[in-house]
Amino acid sequence: MPKKGFEEIRERMLSAAKQGISEAYKSEEYALMQAVNAQIETSRSYNLAYERLSEWYGIYFPEVRMTNPVTLARLVVALNHKGIDDRAIEEAVKDQSKSEEIYKKAQSTIGRKMESSEATGIIRFAELVLSLNESLEQLDSYIKDASKRLMPNTTYLTDHMIAAELLARAGSMERLATMPAGTVQLLGAEKALFKHIKFGSKPPKYGILFKLPEVSNAPREIRGKIARAYATKISIALKADYFSKNFIAEGLKADLTKNLKRIREKPIVPKKEEPRREFKRHGGFHPGKDRMRGSRPHGNRRQ
Amino acid sequence: MPKKGFEEIRERMLSAAKQGISEAYKSEEYALMQAVNAQIETSRSYNLAYERLSEWYGIYFPEVRMTNPVTLARLVVALNHKGIDDRAIEEAVKDQSKSEEIYKKAQSTIGRKMESSEATGIIRFAELVLSLNESLEQLDSYIKDASKRLMPNTTYLTDHMIAAELLARAGSMERLATMPAGTVQLLGAEKALFKHIKFGSKPPKYGILFKLPEVSNAPREIRGKIARAYATKISIALKADYFSKNFIAEGLKADLTKNLKRIREKPIVPKKEEPRREFKRHGGFHPGKDRMRGSRPHGNRRQ
Repeated sequence: MPKKGFEEIRERMLSAAKQGISEAYKSEEYALMQAVNAQIETSRSYNLAYERLSEWYGIYFPEVRMTNPVTLARLVVALNHKGIDDRAIEEAVKDQSKSEEIYKKAQSTIGRKMESSEATGIIRFAELVLSLNESLEQLDSYIKDASKRLMPNTTYLTDHMIAAELLARAGSMERLATMPAGTVQLLGAEKALFKHIKFGSKPPKYGILFKLPEVSNAPREIRGKIARAYATKISIALKADYFSKNFIAEGLKADLTKNLKRIREKPIVPKKEEPRREFKRHGGFHPGKDRMRGSRPHGNRRQ
Repeated sequence: MPKKGFEEIRERMLSAAKQGISEAYKSEEYALMQAVNAQIETSRSYNLAYERLSEWYGIYFPEVRMTNPVTLARLVVALNHKGIDDRAIEEAVKDQSKSEEIYKKAQSTIGRKMESSEATGIIRFAELVLSLNESLEQLDSYIKDASKRLMPNTTYLTDHMIAAELLARAGSMERLATMPAGTVQLLGAEKALFKHIKFGSKPPKYGILFKLPEVSNAPREIRGKIARAYATKISIALKADYFSKNFIAEGLKADLTKNLKRIREKPIVPKKEEPRREFKRHGGFHPGKDRMRGSRPHGNRRQ
């Protein structure tokens, strides 16, 4: 074949590959997954920064403990730019009686006097806490929109963060929609699952789904059953979201509510305590070895 | 005693306690320690956010990889607010030939088209990266000032971050200044040290001091010796910083340079490989048990 022919083929191949890539990223799900991961990481940074700010500010003003990071950060900024000013405090705290209390305490504080050299550092850090909070809100509002758009059924059944986290764990809508319900139930509990398989510890009952208040607030004995009921309906909802794109969530929710009612009303029969399998640090599960010896050290389903 | 006397005593006690607290925090070292910890945590958040932004932006513009977080964040902000604008790109990248290259690539990118709903999320996230960077700079400049003020000798011998980190690890100037040189050498290597004591793994040779380029760039065989030489001089510098407040660092540095030269010029005799002690997962070091049996399972210094 002449050289020109080769080059033409090469060009065509390249452009086909390029188009393939650009088509692969056409779905919004990739943006949503990035946003969810960003949200999770940023929220960790936010909590860390709040704790640090609270401790740091404690050496200047130990009498005040704020549980709301944004209020604390605003107070730090307000009290230092303008000295002890009752109006600035009230603007930051947005609660008259509380701000009066803070004003009184600030005048007789036993904390360290803040030098101007120290002030810029801590004020900038407080502003960072505010900035982190703003980013979190922005990310959250995008995730809310996008998961309603991409996974309307699943979002209706659970909520936008849980739906988006399931997607981020699975890696793509296609993979998530074709997963069996049992896998959906355990998404996010991979570590516990492999510990169970390898060492015979208790199997996990839920992963991300634990974030559902219906699961986490339920009595311990029926939590697993409730997670299971959710997972089966979520699995159907996912298929509708990805394949047919019909909105069937209302019917699913009604069914689910019935199932949950049945689970909750069933009397809880306390199980006989099985002797708990010990978590062995050495050895673990060696299929080859055990098969040769004809025995398994820790009970395994495949026995 | 009459009740009035009691109350008077109580009042006096309270005010004495208050004064005690406010005196304890009089030293700037507490502010410095908070700032250092904030710096370490923020720097972790910053790296995480940069990686996420890089991955996220990769789905829109996979042809560009920026190694500088700030440039990347500026580019994200510039390219999205104003569309593909060569001037905006140049302003963000601050390098003409590079910005021309980016401009060309941006026009024929194979990445996903960014919807306006997605844009606000990622732009706000890029702004967060810029905000994190600004906070880091602000914290760093405060740490620089404060450690020069509080620990002039130690800062002269090492640098402001290392001096401040040593302080943060030790918990107070008093504790740090009264530590033996060997403890200063291993500050920050607590985990490895206790692993050594408990399981007989190799002892650590340096902790925070590994951040000194003289230690980390040295050949493996003499790193420990160099860290030791530094630690002895740092220990003296710390005592000068806390007690006499004289500036003696120039003499110390000259001595140190001589010592380092001697260490570097000494021929390295390759040690005979000792059989490496195994890291045992089970058992570990049980003083009571071993003493009863009259033997120790793994060689221990106290044998």
